[in-house]
Amino acid sequence: MSPDQIDDLLARVRMNADGLVPAIAQQWDTREVLMMAWMDASALRETLETGRGVYFSRSRGERWVKGETSGNVQSVREVRLDCDGDTVLLLVDQTGGACHTGDRTCFDAVGEQWSSGTADPGTSGAGSSGPSTRGPAS
Amino acid sequence: MSPDQIDDLLARVRMNADGLVPAIAQQWDTREVLMMAWMDASALRETLETGRGVYFSRSRGERWVKGETSGNVQSVREVRLDCDGDTVLLLVDQTGGACHTGDRTCFDAVGEQWSSGTADPGTSGAGSSGPSTRGPAS
Repeated sequence: MSPDQIDDLLARVRMNADGLVPAIAQQWDTREVLMMAWMDASALRETLETGRGVYFSRSRGERWVKGETSGNVQSVREVRLDCDGDTVLLLVDQTGGACHTGDRTCFDAVGEQWSSGTADPGTSGAGSSGPSTRGPAS
Repeated sequence: MSPDQIDDLLARVRMNADGLVPAIAQQWDTREVLMMAWMDASALRETLETGRGVYFSRSRGERWVKGETSGNVQSVREVRLDCDGDTVLLLVDQTGGACHTGDRTCFDAVGEQWSSGTADPGTSGAGSSGPSTRGPAS
């Protein structure tokens, strides 16, 4: 992206009261939702300028580059903004696991822990009483 | 989900200081990321109990059922929670457009407006200077 395009995008983003915007990272080809994290304007700018996923840690109060420690970097292929400008969607090529646990996605990891659900993804096992959940393989 | 499963999930969710959790809605089969919105505990419980996407409007300060006005309802097929319990991922079957603009997703709509980017999704047009963006068909 050109500097002007980056400035245009940043001007459209509506940060929250803490100066942050949620960013969803999705694997560009399989379309898995990998993780959700937060960016400040500086992290979003660095992401756009470098093509690497860069975020802001709310707990540590500092910038972090995805994969800087683990090697599981995110190469950003496409950036989208939602209709009211307050959520970013990154289509990325994720090396290795996106989750700090080592799992491929942050969502699969805990989704399998909290439930003894019965339905496989993509089946019609939800029934009439509400949505199904991913259960352990057993 | 059983009442016990719903209670278990709710106990694992880490709401923010406003009592809200971000929820990403993804079309279950095409894996499009449709929208991101917020839920309070009551909306999440109603989503789990009814299998319909129910959210909390931060601007209006009230519950809203996706599609209640437009007819573009979300049938929830699967619910996942991320590794630190502060983001929900819903795999849904979305009727019609998920965005209030009528577009299929909230992200495509503005992603095409803010950029004169040159690369099609899925191409290697990102180049070395940063990520590409979705541009108009022209």
